[in-house]
Amino acid sequence: MSLNTFGHLFRVTTWGESHGPALGATVDGCPPGVAVDEAMLQHWLDRRKPGQSKYTTQRREPDAVRILSGVFEGRTTGTPVQLMIENTDQRSKDYGEIAQRFRPGHADITYWQKYGIRDPRGGGRSSARETAARVAAGGIAREVLKLLAPEVRITGYMVQMGRLRADRDRFDMAEVENNPFWCPDAAAASIWAGHLDELRKSGNSVGAVVEVVASGVPAGLGAPVYGKLDTELAAAMMSINAVKGVEIGAGMAAAELTGVENADEIFMGNDGRPAYSSNHAGGILGGISTGQDVVVRFAVKPTSSILTPRKTISISGEESEIVTKGRHDPCVGIRAVPVGEAMMACVILDHLLLDRAQTGGARGPIGAS
Amino acid sequence: MSLNTFGHLFRVTTWGESHGPALGATVDGCPPGVAVDEAMLQHWLDRRKPGQSKYTTQRREPDAVRILSGVFEGRTTGTPVQLMIENTDQRSKDYGEIAQRFRPGHADITYWQKYGIRDPRGGGRSSARETAARVAAGGIAREVLKLLAPEVRITGYMVQMGRLRADRDRFDMAEVENNPFWCPDAAAASIWAGHLDELRKSGNSVGAVVEVVASGVPAGLGAPVYGKLDTELAAAMMSINAVKGVEIGAGMAAAELTGVENADEIFMGNDGRPAYSSNHAGGILGGISTGQDVVVRFAVKPTSSILTPRKTISISGEESEIVTKGRHDPCVGIRAVPVGEAMMACVILDHLLLDRAQTGGARGPIGAS
Amino acid sequence: MSLNTFGHLFRVTTWGESHGPALGATVDGCPPGVAVDEAMLQHWLDRRKPGQSKYTTQRREPDAVRILSGVFEGRTTGTPVQLMIENTDQRSKDYGEIAQRFRPGHADITYWQKYGIRDPRGGGRSSARETAARVAAGGIAREVLKLLAPEVRITGYMVQMGRLRADRDRFDMAEVENNPFWCPDAAAASIWAGHLDELRKSGNSVGAVVEVVASGVPAGLGAPVYGKLDTELAAAMMSINAVKGVEIGAGMAAAELTGVENADEIFMGNDGRPAYSSNHAGGILGGISTGQDVVVRFAVKPTSSILTPRKTISISGEESEIVTKGRHDPCVGIRAVPVGEAMMACVILDHLLLDRAQTGGARGPIGAS
Amino acid sequence: MSLNTFGHLFRVTTWGESHGPALGATVDGCPPGVAVDEAMLQHWLDRRKPGQSKYTTQRREPDAVRILSGVFEGRTTGTPVQLMIENTDQRSKDYGEIAQRFRPGHADITYWQKYGIRDPRGGGRSSARETAARVAAGGIAREVLKLLAPEVRITGYMVQMGRLRADRDRFDMAEVENNPFWCPDAAAASIWAGHLDELRKSGNSVGAVVEVVASGVPAGLGAPVYGKLDTELAAAMMSINAVKGVEIGAGMAAAELTGVENADEIFMGNDGRPAYSSNHAGGILGGISTGQDVVVRFAVKPTSSILTPRKTISISGEESEIVTKGRHDPCVGIRAVPVGEAMMACVILDHLLLDRAQTGGARGPIGAS
Repeated sequence: MSLNTFGHLFRVTTWGESHGPALGATVDGCPPGVAVDEAMLQHWLDRRKPGQSKYTTQRREPDAVRILSGVFEGRTTGTPVQLMIENTDQRSKDYGEIAQRFRPGHADITYWQKYGIRDPRGGGRSSARETAARVAAGGIAREVLKLLAPEVRITGYMVQMGRLRADRDRFDMAEVENNPFWCPDAAAASIWAGHLDELRKSGNSVGAVVEVVASGVPAGLGAPVYGKLDTELAAAMMSINAVKGVEIGAGMAAAELTGVENADEIFMGNDGRPAYSSNHAGGILGGISTGQDVVVRFAVKPTSSILTPRKTISISGEESEIVTKGRHDPCVGIRAVPVGEAMMACVILDHLLLDRAQTGGARGPIGAS
Repeated sequence: MSLNTFGHLFRVTTWGESHGPALGATVDGCPPGVAVDEAMLQHWLDRRKPGQSKYTTQRREPDAVRILSGVFEGRTTGTPVQLMIENTDQRSKDYGEIAQRFRPGHADITYWQKYGIRDPRGGGRSSARETAARVAAGGIAREVLKLLAPEVRITGYMVQMGRLRADRDRFDMAEVENNPFWCPDAAAASIWAGHLDELRKSGNSVGAVVEVVASGVPAGLGAPVYGKLDTELAAAMMSINAVKGVEIGAGMAAAELTGVENADEIFMGNDGRPAYSSNHAGGILGGISTGQDVVVRFAVKPTSSILTPRKTISISGEESEIVTKGRHDPCVGIRAVPVGEAMMACVILDHLLLDRAQTGGARGPIGAS
Repeated sequence: MSLNTFGHLFRVTTWGESHGPALGATVDGCPPGVAVDEAMLQHWLDRRKPGQSKYTTQRREPDAVRILSGVFEGRTTGTPVQLMIENTDQRSKDYGEIAQRFRPGHADITYWQKYGIRDPRGGGRSSARETAARVAAGGIAREVLKLLAPEVRITGYMVQMGRLRADRDRFDMAEVENNPFWCPDAAAASIWAGHLDELRKSGNSVGAVVEVVASGVPAGLGAPVYGKLDTELAAAMMSINAVKGVEIGAGMAAAELTGVENADEIFMGNDGRPAYSSNHAGGILGGISTGQDVVVRFAVKPTSSILTPRKTISISGEESEIVTKGRHDPCVGIRAVPVGEAMMACVILDHLLLDRAQTGGARGPIGAS
Repeated sequence: MSLNTFGHLFRVTTWGESHGPALGATVDGCPPGVAVDEAMLQHWLDRRKPGQSKYTTQRREPDAVRILSGVFEGRTTGTPVQLMIENTDQRSKDYGEIAQRFRPGHADITYWQKYGIRDPRGGGRSSARETAARVAAGGIAREVLKLLAPEVRITGYMVQMGRLRADRDRFDMAEVENNPFWCPDAAAASIWAGHLDELRKSGNSVGAVVEVVASGVPAGLGAPVYGKLDTELAAAMMSINAVKGVEIGAGMAAAELTGVENADEIFMGNDGRPAYSSNHAGGILGGISTGQDVVVRFAVKPTSSILTPRKTISISGEESEIVTKGRHDPCVGIRAVPVGEAMMACVILDHLLLDRAQTGGARGPIGAS
């Protein structure tokens, strides 16, 4: 019931603030004997790391992860894995003004109202730096998945920046790593680059939509009624900073469909397993995976830390304006891509373990299988 | 960690199948001394009850709730409240065909794959009848809220049926109870009636979008980072049958906004509390309520149980077609409205209790307050 | 986090009061496909049933259990199983006096202090009747264990009544079912019969010690550090009404041993598995099962509902005396035997599922195995 | 559901091995605004620190705790507090032999069987060093209790070493800090000193009984039926390394009492609150605190790491003998005293928060109160 924890059996508790000595994740419930080292995790952290292009915050953090426990001679022992990332580039003075005034659209005011105290340095606990810990934990989840469900592939990418949507007809997954926006549509990425440059220079920021797909997920993961796979994915993605909407498969557009259109018709595939004519369901029916691609999308709002003055109040109740200096992401959606992937990995693994517990991984046979 | 439970402190575990002897909810953690009786709960169940118009299933269920425990002489005792609703109108023969074939878009196939057994009568556990138990539990949550946060008002309504959107300029909340669609736009409701009639007669169904608003929610409810109020609401709504997308405030459209547009600017209200120029945040910042209206929307896909034949397979792997006879909702979104309200009530109460535990309900003062 | 729930994956939530309409258990997380029917569960309930000898309460309850959900055509479906036991012999007038006065040694006063309301009929939620629901749930756990760990045998018995201890040199497990005290020492049982008769007639009651042994438990169940198998057993047994102490293996007497004496020396058994010279550990080391018998003992205090007058106060603060009429167990330890067995079954199964989730049931090999 | 976590709302997750880089505790759910600094926590850690007398392990660990998160300018922020203790005195070579052979009475064998891998250095996760993290977390719990329940006092002490019992007639709590055994009976402490010297020199070890008392606990903490205060205390104490039995109040001896003897008769105290003639209940009735002293005792078995050879087997299944060199506690019960106190502090606080959530801390009035 820890409010800083997610997962049932593969449990991740994150801790730490943006400008404290360190932040990290306590990962409990990891299966034993899994090869894990710091370099493996660093690979994923480097993808989320700030300062890699002019489109992300210029804070210079190595985000070097240390494994403090739970791994012995390169393999997990089944006991808690402590992952620590030290904060090194902390320019607290950048945040002087916001200690007294609340940024509109930011957690400043609600943290103050709830706790009567807040760490104003870099947003404290509400900083997107918290997501580094998720990415590290997700790195462990990926190594376990490699052993237990080696067919699983997880791919995240941006499909929309502001009003500019990528074109699915041009999608080429090989392009995702070729542009700073993780965009599978190279033409869109090029347009986005110019658009974001303008916004950044004008002291503004912009929202985005990220899609994360998990292929190779076995049928049968998830559970009715409150532990549905889609419920858990919705919670996992909504828990990422600045996310305001989550969709599974057809998502909000499912409202526009008729039952005739929405039915993903079922056939027998050549591999002797069920195949489907479409995937409006996003790979999940009744909260349980079908074996199709699991498809999740989420909307990330624009950063509230902008250089354009906005009206606000201070702790003492005085009305004023605020401008947030410092080093901020003009489009936080970009760095949310590896975070969404990490959350997907953790949720899939967690439900793989839950399913193994309850059913032993056995499946109701269809046809000759 | 029960997968059929939601809530941290006000915990609701639902149980039961569509065509078994009964279904219900075990509510644990309810504060003591709250006036609750069966008639109070029945009021809410009657709003969700099937067969009230030609636009919902013609199954005739009284949905009469019995309180089996946890209430003594009309007041809660602080011990578990057991709510039971007996199933009375079970025409199991209606479901003969679907025992062997899987309805496309339905949980039939995934339950089979996961468990190797399923109760085919009316969808068993995956039936929307499960939501009756949520509504009953939500009725208790409302009574507790009346005592602990009497300003809270929860209102749900439909804002879209298929491609037809209600017009916010015509919204009149007094209209919500005047049409079978819980629609605040009377003109839209009239158009929807004709549209749904046509769909129903043609053996089809349609999706919908439901919006639920909680006003009067105190600032300070929720918690970073995985117990965010919006995370919990996303999970609560996504756990409702057929929901494929959840939005908070601006929702998916937040992606289209710039930081300048998205900032809900802050002023001092006449009541000495913070006031806002807009509510893109949907009443939640950093996972914690601001005191503004908490606004959630969710998309409900069309029923997969339709009279139009769809291609599918049987358990033995034979390809065939399926038509679902029986008594189904042409637009399940309609009856999802009271369910969404119930989930909102439970989540708000749960976080009110969590906040009382951690902070004692004290608030960081702003201005003279 | 429900306070009326135990178990991680095999989760049991009990509900109901002694004199309400019914009580029961909601069992979530049960593996699918397990043969379960009401008669199987009734077998265990009948062992706990009151009124079977003059040594237990003369209340006449059939304790007939009904399965309301989660079982289809005689097999579990993997969804919540609702077990309901209706209360039929409720002579509430027997409890008139204790509605205003608190029985010394009873939960009357603390329920009142905590909740400001209590159901005085038969102790309400604090009644030992609640344990009927545990026994029913334990019956399901036993059926699952039969499939997943068929070597497991669970046996409970009384080893002490008041100051009278059974003699381990005379233990014959075949005797357990031959006397009303579940005592493996027939001679002791005979002495206890006379002793309890006297106490009962004098309006007094007496305590007892119960031992529960699980043999055939696979090595490897349990987990450091707070989910230890012994931690969970201690909690499970201490949660039974009137229990004041719990021991694993040598128990409190372990304090008297030296390290040389306490060491259960290890050999290689003829079956190629580790064998031990003794079992001071009670089958658990570092919180994890060794494969030896798991041995738990607990002390049950004497019933506080006695005919001998005791000094007390009333709700209005007046000092007085109280005598509890009604039908009470002179030695509640007797009926605690099947309850302790049920708790053992639930805990062992829960950890079997947890272990299957984390390790897949694989074991670190010793020797040729 | 993390198996390395305890607590419902004040949640403590410990992590780390004896000879890894560090160990610690993640504390979530702490109320905000509580004054906490490293020196306050160090005070408690120093009491548990090894090497303080010849009666405890000669390992030289400063056990210096660092606060990595959740505290800003000396006050808790309500977000997770990360407590880290670096391991500095790690002589891993001391443990060479036990990497292949299992110490009888130690977790060596069960960790191997469960996980197929274990960190043999100093017992890895099963080392009593883990309890340092509990003591640090308990230090935070104490600071919160000072604010929320300032009357609470927690005192632990040893009442038995081997067969030698302290004499309650000679108890003087002022003596507890005056001898290395935390013994309130100065005469017993003196005898124990000689006894333990002999055992230590002969390469042996011995068990002990520790008692922990919490006075000033408000009536009303705890909950039926599985979240009972005594259930939680039993689990908390049984989770401490080497504990084999837990007693509340009269404990196992409750079995010897009659109902007449066991009744703690109730009067009206001079302070207008209920007073009791005795405290067999150990301050808890029906799982809820009465306002009397909460009294818990637990038995600690003797260390299995001894210099006297014991028979065992190796991983490859060969029978042999083992002698454990290295620096071990001849009576681990001694250092369990501050650990038991810490667990008591955490459990009491957790239930104080739970009670505040459900009842708001209101109490059913008795008499004029």
